[in-house]
Amino acid sequence: MLSQFERAHVLVSFKIVNIKIKTGQANSFEMGKSFRFQSSLKTKETRMRKVAKTKTANLHYGDSTQAKKIWCVSPKKKELILQVYNAINKGAHAFLHEEYRFVSIFVGIFSLVILILLGAVDDWSDAAFTVIAFIVGAATSILSGYVGMKIGVFANARTAYRWIWYNRVKCQESLSEGFKTSVKAAIVMGFCLCGFGLFNLYILCIIYQYSYYSDAFSNGGKTSAMFEAIAGYGLGGSFIALFGRVGGGIYTKAADVGADLVGKVEKGIPEDDPRNPDLFGSFAEASCAALVIASQTNQVQDDVNGTLVSVSYIWQDWGYVSFPLVVSAVGILVCFLTSFLATHIFPADKAEKIESTLKQQLLVSTILMTPTLLGLCYLCLPSDPIYEGRYVTNNDLNYVKGKKAHNWSVFICLASGLWAGLAIGYITEYFTSNQNAPVHEVAEACRTGAATNIIMGLALGYKSAIIPVLALAFAAFLSHELAGYYGISMAALGILSTLSIGLTIDAFGPISDNAGGIAEMCNMGKETRELTDSLDAAGNTTAAIGKGFAIGSASFVSLALFSGFVTVIQNRNKHALPSVDILQAFPFAGLLVGAMIPYWFSAMTMKSVGKAAFAMVQEVRRQFHENPGIMEGTSDPDYEQCVRISTDASLKEMFAPGALILLTPLIVGFFFGVQALAGVLAGALVSGVQMAVSASNTGGAWDNAKKYIEKGLGELGGKGSEAHKAAVVGDTVGDPLKDTSGPSLNIVMKLMAIISLVFARAFPTSSGGLLGDLWRAIN
Amino acid sequence: MLSQFERAHVLVSFKIVNIKIKTGQANSFEMGKSFRFQSSLKTKETRMRKVAKTKTANLHYGDSTQAKKIWCVSPKKKELILQVYNAINKGAHAFLHEEYRFVSIFVGIFSLVILILLGAVDDWSDAAFTVIAFIVGAATSILSGYVGMKIGVFANARTAYRWIWYNRVKCQESLSEGFKTSVKAAIVMGFCLCGFGLFNLYILCIIYQYSYYSDAFSNGGKTSAMFEAIAGYGLGGSFIALFGRVGGGIYTKAADVGADLVGKVEKGIPEDDPRNPDLFGSFAEASCAALVIASQTNQVQDDVNGTLVSVSYIWQDWGYVSFPLVVSAVGILVCFLTSFLATHIFPADKAEKIESTLKQQLLVSTILMTPTLLGLCYLCLPSDPIYEGRYVTNNDLNYVKGKKAHNWSVFICLASGLWAGLAIGYITEYFTSNQNAPVHEVAEACRTGAATNIIMGLALGYKSAIIPVLALAFAAFLSHELAGYYGISMAALGILSTLSIGLTIDAFGPISDNAGGIAEMCNMGKETRELTDSLDAAGNTTAAIGKGFAIGSASFVSLALFSGFVTVIQNRNKHALPSVDILQAFPFAGLLVGAMIPYWFSAMTMKSVGKAAFAMVQEVRRQFHENPGIMEGTSDPDYEQCVRISTDASLKEMFAPGALILLTPLIVGFFFGVQALAGVLAGALVSGVQMAVSASNTGGAWDNAKKYIEKGLGELGGKGSEAHKAAVVGDTVGDPLKDTSGPSLNIVMKLMAIISLVFARAFPTSSGGLLGDLWRAIN
Repeated sequence: MLSQFERAHVLVSFKIVNIKIKTGQANSFEMGKSFRFQSSLKTKETRMRKVAKTKTANLHYGDSTQAKKIWCVSPKKKELILQVYNAINKGAHAFLHEEYRFVSIFVGIFSLVILILLGAVDDWSDAAFTVIAFIVGAATSILSGYVGMKIGVFANARTAYRWIWYNRVKCQESLSEGFKTSVKAAIVMGFCLCGFGLFNLYILCIIYQYSYYSDAFSNGGKTSAMFEAIAGYGLGGSFIALFGRVGGGIYTKAADVGADLVGKVEKGIPEDDPRNPDLFGSFAEASCAALVIASQTNQVQDDVNGTLVSVSYIWQDWGYVSFPLVVSAVGILVCFLTSFLATHIFPADKAEKIESTLKQQLLVSTILMTPTLLGLCYLCLPSDPIYEGRYVTNNDLNYVKGKKAHNWSVFICLASGLWAGLAIGYITEYFTSNQNAPVHEVAEACRTGAATNIIMGLALGYKSAIIPVLALAFAAFLSHELAGYYGISMAALGILSTLSIGLTIDAFGPISDNAGGIAEMCNMGKETRELTDSLDAAGNTTAAIGKGFAIGSASFVSLALFSGFVTVIQNRNKHALPSVDILQAFPFAGLLVGAMIPYWFSAMTMKSVGKAAFAMVQEVRRQFHENPGIMEGTSDPDYEQCVRISTDASLKEMFAPGALILLTPLIVGFFFGVQALAGVLAGALVSGVQMAVSASNTGGAWDNAKKYIEKGLGELGGKGSEAHKAAVVGDTVGDPLKDTSGPSLNIVMKLMAIISLVFARAFPTSSGGLLGDLWRAIN
Repeated sequence: MLSQFERAHVLVSFKIVNIKIKTGQANSFEMGKSFRFQSSLKTKETRMRKVAKTKTANLHYGDSTQAKKIWCVSPKKKELILQVYNAINKGAHAFLHEEYRFVSIFVGIFSLVILILLGAVDDWSDAAFTVIAFIVGAATSILSGYVGMKIGVFANARTAYRWIWYNRVKCQESLSEGFKTSVKAAIVMGFCLCGFGLFNLYILCIIYQYSYYSDAFSNGGKTSAMFEAIAGYGLGGSFIALFGRVGGGIYTKAADVGADLVGKVEKGIPEDDPRNPDLFGSFAEASCAALVIASQTNQVQDDVNGTLVSVSYIWQDWGYVSFPLVVSAVGILVCFLTSFLATHIFPADKAEKIESTLKQQLLVSTILMTPTLLGLCYLCLPSDPIYEGRYVTNNDLNYVKGKKAHNWSVFICLASGLWAGLAIGYITEYFTSNQNAPVHEVAEACRTGAATNIIMGLALGYKSAIIPVLALAFAAFLSHELAGYYGISMAALGILSTLSIGLTIDAFGPISDNAGGIAEMCNMGKETRELTDSLDAAGNTTAAIGKGFAIGSASFVSLALFSGFVTVIQNRNKHALPSVDILQAFPFAGLLVGAMIPYWFSAMTMKSVGKAAFAMVQEVRRQFHENPGIMEGTSDPDYEQCVRISTDASLKEMFAPGALILLTPLIVGFFFGVQALAGVLAGALVSGVQMAVSASNTGGAWDNAKKYIEKGLGELGGKGSEAHKAAVVGDTVGDPLKDTSGPSLNIVMKLMAIISLVFARAFPTSSGGLLGDLWRAIN
């Protein structure tokens, strides 16, 4: 049946190739069985017909052309949308199945690694519990991804359908309805992800608490061990995120870059994955880092002259330890309230308003969250005693110097993260929206060709790192000064407390973008096309805000995880990591090597995209050459082969970067020691942040500069002009930067840190690690 | 007279525009007064005629065609070369004059800054001596630059002349003669630079020693102060280098990118500046860092159980303190011997040999240097006592823990730097030579257009950072472990001990490249063109080796300067900088911000090049439009206007990046304290190294991928093909990366470190700097 569909649409064949490739669509196009969606469309249609009829009869909408249009939609277009939906749905299932099958093998292998390394060195029972948490985390991430995909694919078709429906009935409400559908889907995705993440983590905590150690919350060592095992949950989430990002990134971008290069496709093509595994990882990791640090955070009482007189422990009270979970839970509620703004109170009814409506969401949730967090701090944290983020400043082992953190200072930490996140999001938008000067400059540079476009785009990306880094440095400084490591983990939770909204903003772009693609494929007519174009541009910018948010939060999270790692090491052995002094050889060498890791990783992933795209282009050219009927529209391209190239490339190429990130902390930690590892983590963090911000913003700016020219703005000649050709080159280069390397770097920073945290119990704490031990044994 | 010349060559007008622009040629083309060069050409000609006559009569070369060719050269071509030489010479003078006039103002301003800040906080006399050293350093750098320019311009014309001469007389020796001429000029430049640098520094040390403080070498504090004042010399060198690189880089690259974009010019155009102000800066700074550290390095004698029993000081003996100068001096001698290999023993007689001959130079000098250094260590350093690089590991102020460094361990430090430099140079060559796989891959990516070329080129650059960073980390680790900070400064001196050869290799490329340009302008015929092409490609690769060497040495030097800064601070006040613990708020925030500085700086410089090139292209297009006679060859372009655009852009645009680099250490140091500043320096170093290596190698690879395609290799279609067009885009993007941003980053790292070192006496040592003091005052 679907082969008919293919034949009917052979003229847009390359767009379809692209969609199919991106959704992993294999050869067999068959009608799916999505009765719910089908019946939903039907019910909607019946209702709409009634409305239209009434309107035709009674209201000013009711001219005969409009009435006629209503009937135009139903028989053929609806069928088409259903067909495309089913095709995409099936394809996406096939791809996810393949991806997760592959990734499951990695999960299995890494579970063994965790079990053996942690078990042999530390404790078999702890190791087993860590593995369980790891698997639960991975499974939650997979579940989130799966649900995200289902919602995304469903929402794509539904949005497209609603557009057409409303478009036919009453032109001016179409955008608003489409917007609402997309945004609701995005909201559902955001809440699902946060909900699953929090729920499973909570369940894990409860189960571990009661069955793992019967004496939890009375034995410090055991409580620490328990929460370190729970940190496996964060590792699991990030583990899947890495492969999802890298594999998915190469998979979609190979097709996208390939399609851009062959030049047979136009814009408006679904090319993004609405799932954001990255942010689930961040959420899980930030919570785990906060739990680990909270569970090992001392409560100190000092007398007038500053010496330690008594020590009490925050970990003894589950109510205090669970504060991070409470923050996240309340965050979901606040975001839920905020989301009504976009869906019911002020939904965007004009294209220009989409961007501001979504931006508003982030602003409003941040504003609402601030007093809420203050309330939470006073409500849930001990009021009188001073507690501290553990913090060893010198070698004097009898004295552990701490920060005096009050509940108001914890609030400041949370708020600094929260507002830094907002600032980073807004700055990202400034640099990547085609309504602002930076993108105009890049577009203007297209006048003189691709080279100046690339130069200006790279410069823009570099420049866009300045304020996010300053914001990050300031928030990190403040939280560290106020509440030590605990403060850092609170800042990370602060930025993630508006995660649901961040996810909504992030997911909106791909959903409306892909809906536009469906509308285009179904030849929906000019009005719909115009609509999808404006949604697409807005979606690009909001996706940039989402990316900025993701990078900002990833930086905080990796900082929190780094702090968690240090906390665990210091808790085990105060001699091991009293400081990470870069005036010493191991930390400095580690710092240097760590700063190199993001470059190595980016080289690998970009090259993979380049290679895969190259293979794709060669294949497409071969098909054009051998089968001229494709261009003439008389025969079908061999989609299967294209899909196979993308799949093979993504699965094969995700191995090496994955291994680099997973093995570096283990090798450094075991063989060179924790001092060197701390250096590596810090180096990867400070270098990765800059690269991730630059890469994402450069890519986003190029994309929007292209759109700016396509809209005919800036007197640059519009589509098909020389400036546009130059802009396409930039956009193509930007694809792997903004969708593969850039976002993957977030995961790189976090994953290396959480691996270090999980294995912190097993690393040798002697200076120089195993090689150092060997050296001393020989001498 | 020259206007005739211009008219005669109006067909290559844009090449000339380019040369003129690059050499700052203003409007008035008049015959210069270079009688020496003229007479040198004449003498040479007379001699050659005799030789040719003899050969014509007696040898197998003597067929009548050859004999005829001899006479072809003299009347017109020689005149042409002279004309071009004079034009370039005059233009270069004009540009240097303008540049140095501008820079002198900055030197004046910064001298005042040094005087006031150091004088007010510390000591007016010390401050004055620092200013004197600063001015001497700046003057030496300017002198080196001036002499380098003179040699370069002279060598360009001379090489071109020799090529033609030999080409006419005996085809097969032409390359060898041209090679020898270029390489000799390069050698002279290298030795001049090292010689000036060392000589002036030595004179400064001697004068300061005897007139500055009468009690030098008996009063620790005064000796320290003296060498810290002398460090002003390094600051002066680097100060000029920054403006030379940035200003010169924007100036030449604006024209180059502009010319590439307009597409009226071909390759083989002089586009590089043979002066390398960067390496003079490195040399001066490394020596100063080593002197500062040596002068503050303790000699400790510990008893059996490791406690300090007596302290003696290496600074009391000028023979020991001056060891860094001895290493440099002996390095010059060894390089001098090595250079005979290229000029007399094995000069390259085939195009393929040029690269290996020059590479050999580096290898041979490294091999010769190794036992020489060992000998020096045993000869010049105290044999028995153990001396240490100062190195405070904990807060216990009664005990300063040190490294036990023997003379053999100092040798290992020197050797590790020396060999790491070689390794970095070779790796750079591997990634940028068009004889190796990486460049082939990039060229292959041009098949699918500019975008894949850019993606693969960026990936190559990122990847090329891996081994240099590992080499650097290893050498830094080793030297630090063996001899503390003193060891680090020794590693920097080690890599710089073969500086003369490094400079030779670096300068060879531009000289032969520009000679090729002259030959081309003078319509020298096909044989000469082929010759210049092969030299150009080899010159590109050797320039890449030179750049690798420069980056490697810059990294070591900035590390040494960082160590020097820490040494000075620790020597002033042990409380101030016992460690730079990135687990604490100030150093960590500094690290993050520091890692951002290279991005900020790159954004500025790249944007400047982009903007200037854009203005240039607009101007050229305007001229074409308004004056169609230019294209038809009937009227002259308005060169003046083009030159003005380049000059204005370079002078205006070098201000902001300069201010960023000069002010950051001062602002951070004074307002946020030395802990934060140490973080900033470390961050800038670890992030700058990666960016500098990536940017340089990416640019080099693109350039050579273009040349690879132009040669018709790899079945990519040669010049004018689609692949070639894609390669040109890469090359154009690469220009600012490899000639402006990349090499400037070397200076960024070093300059920030030496400013910190020079101002170390003045920075507040209280935690948090002036803002911290203010905070404590308020509270």
